Amino acid sequence: MTADPRSLFADHAQRLAGTTLRELLADPSRNARLRQRLGPILLDLGRQKLDLAALDALGAHVEAGDWQRARDAMFAGAPINASEQRAVLHTALRAEGSSLPSPAPAEVLHEIGEVLARMEELANALGQGEGGRLGLADGITDVVNIGIGGSDLGPRLAVRALTPFHAGRLRSHFLTNVDGQAAYELMRALDPKRTLVVMVSKTFTTQETLLNGNVLREWVAAAYAGDERQAVARHFVAVSANVGAAAAWGIPAAHVYPMWDFVGGRFSLWSAVGLSLALAVGMDHFRAMLAGAAQVDDHFRTAPWQRNLPVLLALVEFWNRNVQGRASRAVVPYADLLSDLTAYLQQLEMESLGKRVTPQGEPVAQATVPVVWGSVGTNAQHAYFQALHQGTDVVPLEFIGVARPAHPLRANHDALLSNLLAQAAALALGKTFEEALAESGGDPVLAAQRTFPGDRPSTVILLDALTPASFGALVALYEHKVFMLGHLWGINAFDQWGVELGKSIARQILPALADGDAAALDPATRALVAEIRERREVAG
Amino acid sequence: MTADPRSLFADHAQRLAGTTLRELLADPSRNARLRQRLGPILLDLGRQKLDLAALDALGAHVEAGDWQRARDAMFAGAPINASEQRAVLHTALRAEGSSLPSPAPAEVLHEIGEVLARMEELANALGQGEGGRLGLADGITDVVNIGIGGSDLGPRLAVRALTPFHAGRLRSHFLTNVDGQAAYELMRALDPKRTLVVMVSKTFTTQETLLNGNVLREWVAAAYAGDERQAVARHFVAVSANVGAAAAWGIPAAHVYPMWDFVGGRFSLWSAVGLSLALAVGMDHFRAMLAGAAQVDDHFRTAPWQRNLPVLLALVEFWNRNVQGRASRAVVPYADLLSDLTAYLQQLEMESLGKRVTPQGEPVAQATVPVVWGSVGTNAQHAYFQALHQGTDVVPLEFIGVARPAHPLRANHDALLSNLLAQAAALALGKTFEEALAESGGDPVLAAQRTFPGDRPSTVILLDALTPASFGALVALYEHKVFMLGHLWGINAFDQWGVELGKSIARQILPALADGDAAALDPATRALVAEIRERREVAG
Repeated sequence: MTADPRSLFADHAQRLAGTTLRELLADPSRNARLRQRLGPILLDLGRQKLDLAALDALGAHVEAGDWQRARDAMFAGAPINASEQRAVLHTALRAEGSSLPSPAPAEVLHEIGEVLARMEELANALGQGEGGRLGLADGITDVVNIGIGGSDLGPRLAVRALTPFHAGRLRSHFLTNVDGQAAYELMRALDPKRTLVVMVSKTFTTQETLLNGNVLREWVAAAYAGDERQAVARHFVAVSANVGAAAAWGIPAAHVYPMWDFVGGRFSLWSAVGLSLALAVGMDHFRAMLAGAAQVDDHFRTAPWQRNLPVLLALVEFWNRNVQGRASRAVVPYADLLSDLTAYLQQLEMESLGKRVTPQGEPVAQATVPVVWGSVGTNAQHAYFQALHQGTDVVPLEFIGVARPAHPLRANHDALLSNLLAQAAALALGKTFEEALAESGGDPVLAAQRTFPGDRPSTVILLDALTPASFGALVALYEHKVFMLGHLWGINAFDQWGVELGKSIARQILPALADGDAAALDPATRALVAEIRERREVAG
Repeated sequence: MTADPRSLFADHAQRLAGTTLRELLADPSRNARLRQRLGPILLDLGRQKLDLAALDALGAHVEAGDWQRARDAMFAGAPINASEQRAVLHTALRAEGSSLPSPAPAEVLHEIGEVLARMEELANALGQGEGGRLGLADGITDVVNIGIGGSDLGPRLAVRALTPFHAGRLRSHFLTNVDGQAAYELMRALDPKRTLVVMVSKTFTTQETLLNGNVLREWVAAAYAGDERQAVARHFVAVSANVGAAAAWGIPAAHVYPMWDFVGGRFSLWSAVGLSLALAVGMDHFRAMLAGAAQVDDHFRTAPWQRNLPVLLALVEFWNRNVQGRASRAVVPYADLLSDLTAYLQQLEMESLGKRVTPQGEPVAQATVPVVWGSVGTNAQHAYFQALHQGTDVVPLEFIGVARPAHPLRANHDALLSNLLAQAAALALGKTFEEALAESGGDPVLAAQRTFPGDRPSTVILLDALTPASFGALVALYEHKVFMLGHLWGINAFDQWGVELGKSIARQILPALADGDAAALDPATRALVAEIRERREVAG
């Protein structure tokens, strides 16, 4: 898989350059093959600039790469994260919902089951206001998840997406950034004696999480006359692979919920990292989400590429990125409940696939991950869609819609969906100069402004409704798409060495901000440290 | 300005391709010239891949285009929005804070002053709980801004950014999307008798705003035994250029605050569109924000290009976009209070500059607006920074930091700023294979994963503190940067024809969703309408 995809698919690209989406979309048999259903998800790729010959060429390409063997190795727990010598077993976290036997190691499945049982015990106790059964405070009303990256984005997305399924007793909050503003505001809004803090950090060394944890520990302790031990014991739990570090910080082992090195942070929503979600919606809904994801796992493990949704999504991205040369993809959910989906996918896709060397250390043969960006529609239409319709660059879009809303405002929902469909149509079909001229009273200058080139690709993903099961299925669909792109691009999607350098430089800068000794820093950084130190002393 | 910039600057690009930011940053005199201050703003362009010869060539290019004349025409109210034959006078909205005489028409300045006085009257009355003085309800505690695009993004950004300056009596809410979920949740959280609704729509025909307004009107009326007239009179005000339509909807002229056709939505925060902000922080802070923006106006009108911050920002973007070919720019504020800045800039920049024809109707000579994306740091470091450090594409970044925080958590703030500086340094300096090899025990495969190419450009913008004045200055800085890019690219930054096609198609789709008669739609849309109609009837 090391040849440049541009040359592999040059004939197809050239043929398609001579046609338009207007023409392609006139073929119902093509459209039907590009529209595939998987349980509660309809995937419509009909507005991608592909004909069936190009699609079949892409399919032949992925089949030649033996993707099924790579997929099966992941499900079985082979150490496919080579640079860290780790298995990749987020699928085992939801194996209980699968209708296929799990090939994951039995001891892994056993441990996972035990943790789910402990999460259920906690969710039940807090859901009845009886944290005291587990040595925690009674009467908890607010849960603060302290975590960043994969310890934040997944639970945050899920808690918001499943708002209509909240049990009601516990309110959820997410404290993420090391910026003290958020902690400061939370402490003013909450009652420390009714707050449970969930510290989520795989290593229990994450700077942001520990700093915010320290701030909240002091705040709770002040409500216990400064007794930090009691405050932490009654109001803090941890999700971590490092029980020793959590204990040293004050959280007893009985209040630590495990993570494992076979689950990456950005794939960890299904584990105890999802504890905040389990507390918000209860374990029945949490397990329904796992079952929804497992349905996609089963599909990914069994469907031929022609009907395999993760494979099709990956092939379309490969086409747009590597054959058509598109630099970014916009993800636009037409659903306020999915407003955090784009941020979630930014991590899932860009941290997984933002690589430039193979596991063997060789440069990759083609571009890897595009920029992922976007926000909810219709808001986005009134912000940046001007550039998507009439800018100079082509940006493939991904629209996500929900057929059945969770509220009774039908007129609003019909307006919402009509806009989603209209944007996909407008981007694909455009408006010719001649059409614009007819609308502009024959004024060619005005008509030029009102012309839309069209032929701009998009994908539509339509959920029947937003439920725990369909939500789990949607996220699993993206996970397996990422796996497939890692395979197609020949990179390890499961490490993240690129986050290390900034951390080590930050450790050098931090003391210089405090004491002004910046001699060891580069000259440009030194100048900014001096500016910050000078300006922060100026009166407000 | 119609030659391809690549050829104009080919010599400079070639020379710089042979050097690195490591080398460039070793020259303190270069760095000093690329670091410029304007009041509370420090702009550091030192980590851009430019030497002074390239910068001077860019300066000569902009000088040759007579940018000062174009700028002065805007301030004076010439009809520079040619396709709509309109003046562009958002700067007049803050002229009272300027130390230069305003060249805007006197009657415009007079009207603006009158509206500011009316806003002050309303802010004072509601701030004292005495809406009755103006015929509104007494005891208002919550303000809901209904608007979308420029009627939402500016006030939303400002209300959040200036949280530490809130007067305290009134809570702000923003109802934007036509998705009924948001309205549904707001109505469950608020008391209709204590709520003021601000309907913001220049035309008073915006679909989203009217639908949400209808929903909230019914909700308030229910609290008045169904008396819609009284409910609207006491709980609704409008910001609109269309007094007649607002009156027909039920809002009396005395409760309509004007907009004008010489202010575009995305430039309208400074007008009555900022009413929600004025209510949150009071008019003294609102006027301080205007004065901060006016300070940048004065600077833009007088500083030579070498020290003119908006011009320098535009030239660097021109360099990255048109000479280096970068497809996107990431905006990463290290400040939770600025979490909405990226969304704001997406509209300001992409709606203004996402054009492909000149005002004369000719194709542009070069690429126009890049994709603008991003989110707050440090969160972003734990999400997509992997791809920025080690992905295959170069993405220029813009970091925004604040020297002095609005909270007492010093350790958090030092950690925040050290991370900002560290990311800029890491992107610029990278880590060579040899350096990585030394850290990897001589393992070349691992060292390849731990190598950072570096040489990736970024800008640092540092505010002394986040205040009404510095916030106003920051936004005005971006506005004028947009003006300069419109000038350099030869496009009209003030119209938005690209939003029209989707709207007109949506009007065709909406009835088909209700009655199923989709015969007039294109086949791909028809298929999705059928799916939606089928699926929304399925039991949940």
